[in-house]
Amino acid sequence: MINRLVQKIQQTGAPIVVGLDPMLKYVPRHIQQKAYAEYGESLQGAAEAIWLYNKEIVDAICDLVPAVKPQIAMYEQFGIEGLQAFQKTVSYCREKGLVVIGDIKRGDIGSTSEAYAVGHLGRVQVGANAYYGFNEDFVTVNPYLGSDGVNPFIKVCREEKKGLFILVKTSNPSSGEFQDRLVKCEDGTEKPLYEIVGEKVAQWGADCMGDTYSYIGAVVGATYPEMGKALRRVMPKSFILVPGYGAQGGKGADLVHFFNEDGLGAIVNSSRGIIAAYQQEKYAGYGEENFAEASRAAVLDMKADIASALANR
Amino acid sequence: MINRLVQKIQQTGAPIVVGLDPMLKYVPRHIQQKAYAEYGESLQGAAEAIWLYNKEIVDAICDLVPAVKPQIAMYEQFGIEGLQAFQKTVSYCREKGLVVIGDIKRGDIGSTSEAYAVGHLGRVQVGANAYYGFNEDFVTVNPYLGSDGVNPFIKVCREEKKGLFILVKTSNPSSGEFQDRLVKCEDGTEKPLYEIVGEKVAQWGADCMGDTYSYIGAVVGATYPEMGKALRRVMPKSFILVPGYGAQGGKGADLVHFFNEDGLGAIVNSSRGIIAAYQQEKYAGYGEENFAEASRAAVLDMKADIASALANR
Repeated sequence: MINRLVQKIQQTGAPIVVGLDPMLKYVPRHIQQKAYAEYGESLQGAAEAIWLYNKEIVDAICDLVPAVKPQIAMYEQFGIEGLQAFQKTVSYCREKGLVVIGDIKRGDIGSTSEAYAVGHLGRVQVGANAYYGFNEDFVTVNPYLGSDGVNPFIKVCREEKKGLFILVKTSNPSSGEFQDRLVKCEDGTEKPLYEIVGEKVAQWGADCMGDTYSYIGAVVGATYPEMGKALRRVMPKSFILVPGYGAQGGKGADLVHFFNEDGLGAIVNSSRGIIAAYQQEKYAGYGEENFAEASRAAVLDMKADIASALANR
Repeated sequence: MINRLVQKIQQTGAPIVVGLDPMLKYVPRHIQQKAYAEYGESLQGAAEAIWLYNKEIVDAICDLVPAVKPQIAMYEQFGIEGLQAFQKTVSYCREKGLVVIGDIKRGDIGSTSEAYAVGHLGRVQVGANAYYGFNEDFVTVNPYLGSDGVNPFIKVCREEKKGLFILVKTSNPSSGEFQDRLVKCEDGTEKPLYEIVGEKVAQWGADCMGDTYSYIGAVVGATYPEMGKALRRVMPKSFILVPGYGAQGGKGADLVHFFNEDGLGAIVNSSRGIIAAYQQEKYAGYGEENFAEASRAAVLDMKADIASALANR
């Protein structure tokens, strides 16, 4: 799957992933009305609204980008009905040829991580049959529990030719509280915790190589470009998923350090900035009805921003 | 909810939580056969099997213990159908008067953590209506993203009178890879990361007091009794959820340091050791058909083990 991701980035010229994080406040009124007319102002109504919204955006952008990243929390908040919309979205995006990164940030002890891995990337055995649960292509994983929380995910990735992005340095303001703590190393030097986690990601990924990159990648926030620069060196073969562009404050120029010399090695996420583009002054001219066209325009602008930053580095 | 948990621990005399982590290999054959006869060897068949299994165990133990802890991964692996069994289990246990700790280990940046908090502890707004999604009483939370990943959970706990257990030191063998790293503090001293996280839990919990304990608790594995001793002092007002008893290797004598002098402050989890008791030699006499009676016997033995350890400390 990492080879497919690299290939699709090269084909589209866009190292971009669109975050499908559909909060109801982003969903245009005419779509909400349509869904509520059918199912009422219910969990099912909300699930239908976010599904219709996603579908129209995916149709408008699927030829421009290699990948999407649905954030499962935005679906899980609507209970079972919301998770059905998540499943439908994952499956539709795969049909459209997009690589699907499930932003699930799971992580637990051995047998429990195995259950998550099986449910999201692999197949679960029931008697003589095996079934895919959610069937994403990549998932994000939280490393706090260490190797025996991560290894079951790696095992399933190997079997299913899928991949991971492991949280190293997250994009949020308080990510430094634990991740930036200076840790004493065996050789007497000191390093921030995120760097130790980054080294571990490089180790885990070394035995999991695709053609040019490992299928064990990392998450490093666009909001911390200097740390991105350091982590790029620590994990030369790991793809970096970079959240925090746009609405969270990251800019194209901040991103160049996340890429290798080959112009690869990173994929930048934007969620709100794309899916709710029509709510920004810049794209207001499209109108609420044409929200998906506004999203398409926002993708094209983001693509140009990143390309120009990479050209001028 | 923390007051209710304390009260129920006092009523039952059992600081015990039963982990409802139903792997199919624990589910007796006659139950699997019944479920598959109705729904086939399908995700729905598996979901029915784990639901029937849970229900019989809950009926057998609900008068003995204050709380249960369903591990959502074990349901999520069966996709939507599995999560429906999770929801049914949570709701049934609440009807039976048990406190339900959703072992979900979620954690993300602000708005995303809010969605998880709303979906698992609170209510989500859809138009003019508000709905509970999964409606657990407590959930476990991963702290790697820092305060702005945890605060949205705390906000919902305050509104809904619910609670959290935040991962501090997990029970698995590789938990030390990151959690035990020595971190340099501002005053020049060094402390392991888990202690820094523990201090943060105490801070977060200080403004969230029930009558005697905070509703912001911690997870500390039974497999690390010395660290439990240190962390008990760091977080005197935090309830500690202690996994790792029984099958993972923790013993009653290891547990005493997790409790305060008042005999409270900790609740010990056992999953496999109780729900699959009939598979142990010790309880084999009950037979597979009477698996729930074996679980009841295992709870009574665990209660006696902990009581005797506390009496002899």
